[in-house]
This record gives sequence, structure tokens and C-alpha cells, in this order.
Amino acid sequence: MKKRLYQIVGKRLKAFREARGLSQEAFASMCNLHRTYIGGIERGERNITLETLQAIAETLKISPSELLKEKEEDV
Amino acid sequence: MKKRLYQIVGKRLKAFREARGLSQEAFASMCNLHRTYIGGIERGERNITLETLQAIAETLKISPSELLKEKEEDV
Repeated sequence: MKKRLYQIVGKRLKAFREARGLSQEAFASMCNLHRTYIGGIERGERNITLETLQAIAETLKISPSELLKEKEEDV
Repeated sequence: MKKRLYQIVGKRLKAFREARGLSQEAFASMCNLHRTYIGGIERGERNITLETLQAIAETLKISPSELLKEKEEDV
């Protein structure tokens, strides 16, 4: 297996969150997750489920597939 | 939350698998998962992780984001 998908998602989440000027704490509270869990996802340490991916995408108001892209543009 | 993402993925997996003429059993063996687990995913009963999504996409030789699309074309 090449690069792990959840590591790509972690980087993308961090980029989207920061582009919106949100702290990990503020974002975590918006999607009813814990700040340390968001930190773990962003560091690529968490193999999240599709339910969590969907909740994060809905909080960011983007399509879940936007979180799977490796490119850094369009954040 | 609207339609659950893992239910969309289940339908897409079934469509891609059948388009390739693979049984659940054959496909399961190709991605080192159990046939009943593949059945559960296809029925939208399994909230799979990104690792499993990636393994399925790699077995189908498609991008993981292809499995998140609601449309039925391009299978």
C-alpha cells in the first residue's frame, strides 16, 4: 500500500481548518469531537471511519472527497 | 446528517464489483477481507475505515474518491 489515505486526510483537514481561521479546539467543538482526537487525525495517526469523515466534511461545508485529494490547492 | 456516506460507498462497491464480473467471494479474497464483511459493506451496514476504503479502491484499481460518488455512471 502506498501513502495511507488517512494521512492524506489529516493534512487536508489541517489545511482546510487553518484556511478558515479555526483552532483545533473550535473546530472540534463544531463537529462534536474532542480536540485531541482532531489533533490525532491531523497528524495522520487516526484511521477514521466514513462517519467521522462525513461529519468533518459537513462541518467544513465541503464534499467528503475534497478531503481525499493530495493536492494542496483549492482549500 | 443526510444520507450516510458508508451507504453510498456500499452501493458503489457493489456496482464496481459487478461491472468487473466478480463474485463477493472472489472480490473478498482479492482484498483479503471476508465475504460476509464485503456483503455487509455493500448492504450499507458497515461504517468502514479509510484503510479499508483504500484497500477496496486499490483492489478495484480506482481512486478512493470514486467510491464516494452517488452517481451510478462511470462504473
